[in-house]
Amino acid sequence: MNSKIKIGLFGFGTVGQGIYKVLEKTKNTHAEIKRICVRDVNKKRNVDLPAGVLTDNPADILDDPDINLIVEVIDKGEPAFKIVSAALEKGIPVVSGNKAMLAAHLPELIELQRRHNVALLYDASSCGSIPVIRNLEEYYDNDLLLEVKGILNGSSNFILSRVFDHGEDYDSALRRAQELGFAESDPSFDIEGFDSLFKLIIITVHALGVYVRPDDVFTYGISTIHDSDIRYAREKRVKIKLVAQVVKLSDDRFTMFVMPEIVQPSRYIYSVDDEYNGVVIRGECYDRQFMFGKGAGSLPTASSILSDIMARLHDYRYEYKKMNYEGRPEYTTGVELRVYIRYSTTNVSHVLRLNRVHEQFISDESNYLIADVDLSELIAKRDALRAPDIFLANIPRFFADRDN
Amino acid sequence: MNSKIKIGLFGFGTVGQGIYKVLEKTKNTHAEIKRICVRDVNKKRNVDLPAGVLTDNPADILDDPDINLIVEVIDKGEPAFKIVSAALEKGIPVVSGNKAMLAAHLPELIELQRRHNVALLYDASSCGSIPVIRNLEEYYDNDLLLEVKGILNGSSNFILSRVFDHGEDYDSALRRAQELGFAESDPSFDIEGFDSLFKLIIITVHALGVYVRPDDVFTYGISTIHDSDIRYAREKRVKIKLVAQVVKLSDDRFTMFVMPEIVQPSRYIYSVDDEYNGVVIRGECYDRQFMFGKGAGSLPTASSILSDIMARLHDYRYEYKKMNYEGRPEYTTGVELRVYIRYSTTNVSHVLRLNRVHEQFISDESNYLIADVDLSELIAKRDALRAPDIFLANIPRFFADRDN
Repeated sequence: MNSKIKIGLFGFGTVGQGIYKVLEKTKNTHAEIKRICVRDVNKKRNVDLPAGVLTDNPADILDDPDINLIVEVIDKGEPAFKIVSAALEKGIPVVSGNKAMLAAHLPELIELQRRHNVALLYDASSCGSIPVIRNLEEYYDNDLLLEVKGILNGSSNFILSRVFDHGEDYDSALRRAQELGFAESDPSFDIEGFDSLFKLIIITVHALGVYVRPDDVFTYGISTIHDSDIRYAREKRVKIKLVAQVVKLSDDRFTMFVMPEIVQPSRYIYSVDDEYNGVVIRGECYDRQFMFGKGAGSLPTASSILSDIMARLHDYRYEYKKMNYEGRPEYTTGVELRVYIRYSTTNVSHVLRLNRVHEQFISDESNYLIADVDLSELIAKRDALRAPDIFLANIPRFFADRDN
Repeated sequence: MNSKIKIGLFGFGTVGQGIYKVLEKTKNTHAEIKRICVRDVNKKRNVDLPAGVLTDNPADILDDPDINLIVEVIDKGEPAFKIVSAALEKGIPVVSGNKAMLAAHLPELIELQRRHNVALLYDASSCGSIPVIRNLEEYYDNDLLLEVKGILNGSSNFILSRVFDHGEDYDSALRRAQELGFAESDPSFDIEGFDSLFKLIIITVHALGVYVRPDDVFTYGISTIHDSDIRYAREKRVKIKLVAQVVKLSDDRFTMFVMPEIVQPSRYIYSVDDEYNGVVIRGECYDRQFMFGKGAGSLPTASSILSDIMARLHDYRYEYKKMNYEGRPEYTTGVELRVYIRYSTTNVSHVLRLNRVHEQFISDESNYLIADVDLSELIAKRDALRAPDIFLANIPRFFADRDN
């Protein structure tokens, strides 16, 4: 595909309009938007479009032989999957930023790409403007990789920054994130850790060549964070961040989870504030690499979509090389974590089988434990742990593989 | 090239031995070192090699039809250029980490790659383990890119960190860098800014599609830094870092230079310490991206060479797309900088045409000026500015294009 790219765009919300603006800024891109499919063509919009560009009929794009790239930036997962799979089946390459859809359907989408010999690119789906997927696929494509860990969600990080660095309360910080357009249409997606989880699922496919179902991964968000947790962190001179990580425990096994973490000032991610994302890639020989950039907002995401569009000019596609590696590691939840558990009415040590309690604090207002617990136990009890009086945070340390 | 990679290695110093060790650690690489060409085959080495691997005759590698990749990690520039160009002329792909050679010969090497339809990869040449070249080539391959700026030399940064953060004096910090193997065989290469310059030349080819001769770029190092400069920086609560930068001034023009810089604590590069490198990529829409990792040392560089080797498994090559862009910007030195100039015996305002002096401090021990000066004037007077009693540092601010 070395001629001009003619784009059929699905979705014209914040990101869709950002793509339109970014394409107007670039003179060497050789790409233009031909049609845009939206739910309501008559809705008032801030962008002046030529007549006939908007349509509400997907077939106007999917059946247009002139369109050679589909860019999908719909907010919903299942309608997006229908469009993306229909396009791939027709042999039309697709660029997508839809992490929920990708995390749920990656195995089928990889199979569709193989069967129809067509590309699906989605660097924009993880960490907005940071090229994590592309680097894992191309640059860290060897056995040296040990760990990918980071702050993958801009809006929850923005909220925690307002709380920790600006002394705001949680509710007003959430409202501000929504006003600034950093929060997704459903804020629970960001705040409960699912946005980070979906990104982590995608990252793991490109980091280790293994797909893990979202439901099999422990995911805990920040919605139950409480003044006493913030006070605790301030006293210890640490921050609480929502962190996603995938870690090799040995050549054969790896683990992954999303949960709040107690972050020491010496860690790279400690200074990833506001709506920024930061990813640490750790490997043998090169130690730690850190990538940092804007993780939320219309234009950063759009610029990342532009990079995927440009890559199609040169026929780039993900090869999913690591899925064919000999001795790919297996996912395990048989690993022991050290956690901070704050609670008030729930009797946590009845709910959760703790391997060892290191600290216990009891007061009129709230209580906390520092304890060792198996990740498999956290998954088994995850519904009970979502009680509004409980908050959980990982205390990072070397963790051993308990299955071996 | 999807079968096994058989490597002919030129050079078996720190980096060459690192590559040997890294290849032993990886089981999925499908690459092995077949022959190693060194100056002295009888030299005592720490690595046990099978008999017959070492040779001192380049033809043993260049004429071996079994060898399908040449990895060149020689310390010297001109012998390296001979080997690399001979290999390319024979159609053998090359991986090189030799920035001096690349910065001097890139236009010829690009032409050789085109003429013989063969790849030369050199991500390891810039910033050790950070994938700057690959990302500029593939991910930031559009008009949005505005600036690439960073700490590109690990050893000078290590020295400045020892001086600023550990209160060591300059000479003992330099000795320590050499003991730890961070400094190149000729330390002036690192300390006078030439290592950073060569990397900047390579980066600019992949950032903006323009090759600038090393001799046309103002380059100023840290060898004349003095206690009074360190005291000045401490009093102002800033650090002095050796910074290389290429900056678009407008759609049509860009400038570039290497010099010490007064870095405020709020800047990303402020916290790039020790032997680390850090690069900030700034663009329209995505604002600033920051990449950070180990920039010096045997294994980090070797792991980067491994990434280039792996890329050859998938026939990757640089396309130099931006060299074909319409309206590539032109290099200009017609830009005004604000600088800190410390001096003792030299009468700086006689040597240098200053546009405006903002501050002047005179004392028994040493004197300094804060002044605006044209970059073209710094280039014209660069020999005089290397007097041992002068030290120069850029004070970053928005700078205007003075040619337009």
